[in-house]
Amino acid sequence: MAEPFSDTERAAVYRAIHERRDMRHFLPDPVDPAILQRLLQAAHHAPSVGFMQPWRVIRITAPELRAGLVEIVERERLATAEALGERGGAFMKLKVEGIRDCGELLVMNLMDGREAHIFGRRTLPEMDLASVACAIQNMWLAARAEGLGMGWVSLFDVDAVRALLGVPVGAKPVAILCLGHVAEFYPAPMLQQEGWKQRMELQDCLLENRWDA
Amino acid sequence: MAEPFSDTERAAVYRAIHERRDMRHFLPDPVDPAILQRLLQAAHHAPSVGFMQPWRVIRITAPELRAGLVEIVERERLATAEALGERGGAFMKLKVEGIRDCGELLVMNLMDGREAHIFGRRTLPEMDLASVACAIQNMWLAARAEGLGMGWVSLFDVDAVRALLGVPVGAKPVAILCLGHVAEFYPAPMLQQEGWKQRMELQDCLLENRWDA
Repeated sequence: MAEPFSDTERAAVYRAIHERRDMRHFLPDPVDPAILQRLLQAAHHAPSVGFMQPWRVIRITAPELRAGLVEIVERERLATAEALGERGGAFMKLKVEGIRDCGELLVMNLMDGREAHIFGRRTLPEMDLASVACAIQNMWLAARAEGLGMGWVSLFDVDAVRALLGVPVGAKPVAILCLGHVAEFYPAPMLQQEGWKQRMELQDCLLENRWDA
Repeated sequence: MAEPFSDTERAAVYRAIHERRDMRHFLPDPVDPAILQRLLQAAHHAPSVGFMQPWRVIRITAPELRAGLVEIVERERLATAEALGERGGAFMKLKVEGIRDCGELLVMNLMDGREAHIFGRRTLPEMDLASVACAIQNMWLAARAEGLGMGWVSLFDVDAVRALLGVPVGAKPVAILCLGHVAEFYPAPMLQQEGWKQRMELQDCLLENRWDA
């Protein structure tokens, strides 16, 4: 039987959880390939529904593809501002991505051929995305422990990214991940700092036995 | 600027990531309420799209509701075995949940009123589920650090759980979480130990620049 976590080890896990931030400000310094490998292994050791391991990561190293992703996200940023109506102006003042500057740019995809995986997905097929999100969260926490920042950008047209990166129709890009060195970590979530939204009380997210009680 | 993680702290984060397991075997001992609170805070400090915090947790303390969830999951287990065809027999031999025995039983839901949240969800509305999955992964890792096991059960009919727990139609149960003490953690993922599926090589999940290159 494995040794229990020491107090120091347990505190370190909570520290990563509480000090992790969705980063949008990066320094352009490159990421050590050995660290990148550890982060990808962390992602690969996430839980997955029926152990299907649905994550497929495209590492973007070609500058023209990075530029293409910048363009795609910028188009969606404008479309989102429009859709937000009266909050569109406030949204446009936020920095919502760090694609140009981050040292490593990754596109996370759902694999193709997912319909063959039924275990845990017959009634909830979207559990494949849940598994990929767990993988990304592992990477996020490991990056924080390595002193690196990460940001998950979901402001993009899926078919535009598919076309840019040759992703087959059965697969699906679900995250543009900006990873890299940062000058500092935000002391609180950036959207809270900027007044976009405040953290709820945990109590308001908890119910007992019945929702409607 | 926050202190870098020490080598010990960094190793502890990786240890939680690599030793976390999707548990289905539990001891019936109760979970310390202070620990449960820490785990729920860990979940609540997950990233969320547009900081929407879409997680709503129902703690199940009523024995008749626990029994109701057992029944719902058992029905879906049989339906899944049927849908699996020739692998149905092998599936039926697996232990796929620990609902009866676990010390704490939680049902994780997507909140209602999600359509008002457009930031990061205009083209990818399912990012709300991704946020909830990140919250669950936080809880999973924190539980491992606390020496507790957790399992995510997605074998259920959504409307049956909705009806049992009075979850409004705009909200959606996405996980039955079994949490509790365990005799030991599986040394490898249980589905691998049981020969259901093997871990892929990380290399086979990685691509560079274009999927079709």
